[in-house]
Amino acid sequence: MFVRNCWYVIAWDHEVPHDALFSRTVLGEAILLYRTGEGEIVALRDRCCHRLAPLSKGRKEGDCVRCGYHGLLFDATGRCIEIPGTETVPEKARVQRYPLAVKNKWVFVWMGDPAKADLALLPDNFSCDDPGWDYVPGYMHYATPQQLICDNLLDFSHLSYVHEKTLGGSSAIAQARAEIEPVPRGIRVRRRVHDVPPPPYYRSVREIAGNLDRWFVYDFVLPGTLLMHSGGRPVEDAEDDMRRAVRLHSCQTVTPETGTTSHYFFQQSRRIEDGAPSIAEALYRSLLVAFEEDRAMITAQSQAITADPDQPMLLLAMDAAVVRFRKLVGDTLAAERLDAVGTQLARAERDARSIA
Amino acid sequence: MFVRNCWYVIAWDHEVPHDALFSRTVLGEAILLYRTGEGEIVALRDRCCHRLAPLSKGRKEGDCVRCGYHGLLFDATGRCIEIPGTETVPEKARVQRYPLAVKNKWVFVWMGDPAKADLALLPDNFSCDDPGWDYVPGYMHYATPQQLICDNLLDFSHLSYVHEKTLGGSSAIAQARAEIEPVPRGIRVRRRVHDVPPPPYYRSVREIAGNLDRWFVYDFVLPGTLLMHSGGRPVEDAEDDMRRAVRLHSCQTVTPETGTTSHYFFQQSRRIEDGAPSIAEALYRSLLVAFEEDRAMITAQSQAITADPDQPMLLLAMDAAVVRFRKLVGDTLAAERLDAVGTQLARAERDARSIA
Amino acid sequence: MFVRNCWYVIAWDHEVPHDALFSRTVLGEAILLYRTGEGEIVALRDRCCHRLAPLSKGRKEGDCVRCGYHGLLFDATGRCIEIPGTETVPEKARVQRYPLAVKNKWVFVWMGDPAKADLALLPDNFSCDDPGWDYVPGYMHYATPQQLICDNLLDFSHLSYVHEKTLGGSSAIAQARAEIEPVPRGIRVRRRVHDVPPPPYYRSVREIAGNLDRWFVYDFVLPGTLLMHSGGRPVEDAEDDMRRAVRLHSCQTVTPETGTTSHYFFQQSRRIEDGAPSIAEALYRSLLVAFEEDRAMITAQSQAITADPDQPMLLLAMDAAVVRFRKLVGDTLAAERLDAVGTQLARAERDARSIA
Repeated sequence: MFVRNCWYVIAWDHEVPHDALFSRTVLGEAILLYRTGEGEIVALRDRCCHRLAPLSKGRKEGDCVRCGYHGLLFDATGRCIEIPGTETVPEKARVQRYPLAVKNKWVFVWMGDPAKADLALLPDNFSCDDPGWDYVPGYMHYATPQQLICDNLLDFSHLSYVHEKTLGGSSAIAQARAEIEPVPRGIRVRRRVHDVPPPPYYRSVREIAGNLDRWFVYDFVLPGTLLMHSGGRPVEDAEDDMRRAVRLHSCQTVTPETGTTSHYFFQQSRRIEDGAPSIAEALYRSLLVAFEEDRAMITAQSQAITADPDQPMLLLAMDAAVVRFRKLVGDTLAAERLDAVGTQLARAERDARSIA
Repeated sequence: MFVRNCWYVIAWDHEVPHDALFSRTVLGEAILLYRTGEGEIVALRDRCCHRLAPLSKGRKEGDCVRCGYHGLLFDATGRCIEIPGTETVPEKARVQRYPLAVKNKWVFVWMGDPAKADLALLPDNFSCDDPGWDYVPGYMHYATPQQLICDNLLDFSHLSYVHEKTLGGSSAIAQARAEIEPVPRGIRVRRRVHDVPPPPYYRSVREIAGNLDRWFVYDFVLPGTLLMHSGGRPVEDAEDDMRRAVRLHSCQTVTPETGTTSHYFFQQSRRIEDGAPSIAEALYRSLLVAFEEDRAMITAQSQAITADPDQPMLLLAMDAAVVRFRKLVGDTLAAERLDAVGTQLARAERDARSIA
Repeated sequence: MFVRNCWYVIAWDHEVPHDALFSRTVLGEAILLYRTGEGEIVALRDRCCHRLAPLSKGRKEGDCVRCGYHGLLFDATGRCIEIPGTETVPEKARVQRYPLAVKNKWVFVWMGDPAKADLALLPDNFSCDDPGWDYVPGYMHYATPQQLICDNLLDFSHLSYVHEKTLGGSSAIAQARAEIEPVPRGIRVRRRVHDVPPPPYYRSVREIAGNLDRWFVYDFVLPGTLLMHSGGRPVEDAEDDMRRAVRLHSCQTVTPETGTTSHYFFQQSRRIEDGAPSIAEALYRSLLVAFEEDRAMITAQSQAITADPDQPMLLLAMDAAVVRFRKLVGDTLAAERLDAVGTQLARAERDARSIA
């Protein structure tokens, strides 16, 4: 059901405490996060191998975690190293450890084959940790499948309607045709809008008198991550004159919690040189209002789909990016399944040879 | 599961606003109601054909409705007439329109084959809009299937027990045998009770000193509508002397929201000549108390059935009307299925002939 | 799914009122309890045989109960003795009566074959009604299957971790090996712990300066009942010198409400000779805090299991009693099924002979 050989964002770096246990579910698997004495984050399956109680109900002991039910102690690799009342610890007494990476304040877990966990596949979320950019980190929980949130992010024509009074401000966004091209493990979407009034939320960044040319250029990559440069420039200014422009960079990612619920991590950064620190806070508040608009619409859509799951969508020109990304996900899932079958076959052949 | 070629009440006329969108679910289908500039009510499937978002989350534009997600515009026939960013609108871009009728303040939708929508099948809910009668309109939501509420209305012996202190007031109602006869698409039920104390709620209508003869005469017709004359007359008065009688007319109907939840629309009218306007309000309040008694009992019954769905009921003499109406529903469902098979066969024959 | 030929505790004696109806669900069956004029408790299926409404929504009439929906009257054997508006009552008009026993303040229902209801199978819950012992009765509802709560009670190694600051107080409890031996329809578990600090909750009973030797000796019998002597004695005192010891007796039982929810009845008694009556109340409050610790852990465990029901547990040395009792339940279930098949076979043979 889910692409597994991917880095999924499980938390903002600041969410993982230094002296306590933190649990969040990804792809239906409860995962325990905690920090070693050196501050490194460990990701273990949040389920004791003994009677399946959540380890997050236990406690940290040094770099280990002790189950709060019957006291089994696990080290940072997930191996059980102590069972109260028992001399020896069976080899099978271990919980799954997930490959983990922290990049620019995002904490990622690798949900697939650990041997394939490749740091080169981490997304370029640079503005999450860049001295030139400034933001307030955001998190939102969705009671909908991940796919519907990705669909939303892949088609900005909704800005004209869902966000008419916040991020949009003009039906010209929906009128503009998006250009789409492939990038590794995703697509790039460009949308340019000419001579439109500034959207209401730009007022947090600066005073703008006349109309703007606006742009949205983003990569949307597996498993569901948006990396976007956007902005607006007074129509009378030259294309390379950014002195009066609003320039933003946004990193957003959607992680399935389960098949029907999702985590949404987001930020919209502004350039520090553009003014007072309070601007980042104002941008964040505007974004929250707008993302609540999305959540209300997507939740209503999801409920309509749940009530009648077989009703097909009607694909239109504006759905080009949605269709391309859904196809990419489908192809990736198929490749992962094929790969799994190949691994099984190879194992069977090896077994057959060893018998012969 | 549901009889479809029927007019189902979806709303009281006053519930549908003049400047906004209204949504209610009938037979599991969310339906959008709104008014044209002329005040006529339109009923469309409340689900955009594009990405299935509820149209009721959008807005009225003249006699049209615009989806609030990506801006598709639909006219009052359900045809899409504008897709932002697209020159042409595909023929398939439409949402279902339901035949609609308003009669005596009840708004009906036809849930079956539109070609069969026949205004002659509307029930005679005259007292909902008659200068001689007066009432306060009622609506109640049920977390139970429609059938259990119909069962309740088909057997007034429950008045003696569920409504002992409200509508009933005497165990004689349960003792009396109901007479049942067929009417088109339903049955007529008559129950007469001799020489009983006036039920508590009659006090709202008038002071009554001695005992009464009471009567209940109602038609119960598909899909689940009760149309009732009832009343009580001092035992000492002649049968045709209505001067000191209480005379009421009630229209009640149960519309399935889903297979497990229902809408209940009701009123109990009194004759305007019988006194002050405040009487209608007092009758309504009495009815609400009594119908809460029903809802508590039916909800408890429904939960018991859900916990053990295979347990059969034990049919007794008092269940005659329940059994007859359940049979009518079953026969009607079977006829609709047969009709659907006939239509498929005719189509297949026509196709076969066109190939030959 | 459940062992049926068992006495299940359905209520504390004081919970069943003298003038009203009481309903509680056991093994998924709603059961009505009420008292006759003589004070004896009657247990009937809480579901009218007519239209399946709960009888507990009706009213007591003498030693009978009248359904509040259509007025059927049932006597204390479950036989219907009056149907309003009907002369004769069909033989089939009856609701199930359950064998019932009250022993030492616990009210038991027999959920299996009434012919097998044997009072000798009632557990020895003596301290629930003994002049030498004193307690406050406890009840707790669980949103988890019964089995997980039994597992918890069968393995006291969790006292060291779940109840570190309440009932436990030392990791030595988990270190100690439990001795297990069979008893009729259950197992006996003994655990002795030498030279440990007194657990925090002993302070309610008496001031204790030094370390204790502690003991827990309990029978755990079908369907899920714990009967325990426990206590602690200053290490320096002789084994038979109980003058400075804390001695407690506890009766606890877990009754499945449904396959996924449970009732938990419990008490921890102290010897009246040990001091002021307020001690029983203080012990009860300590126990409530500790049993909330259990409920939080078991509920979290249950949710983890529900999220991934196929994940096996890893059995360890400490699970010996859990494994033995689960096997006893499995064997008893299998025997009941075999018995049912045998009964069917015997009936078939008898029928065959009567035909021949």
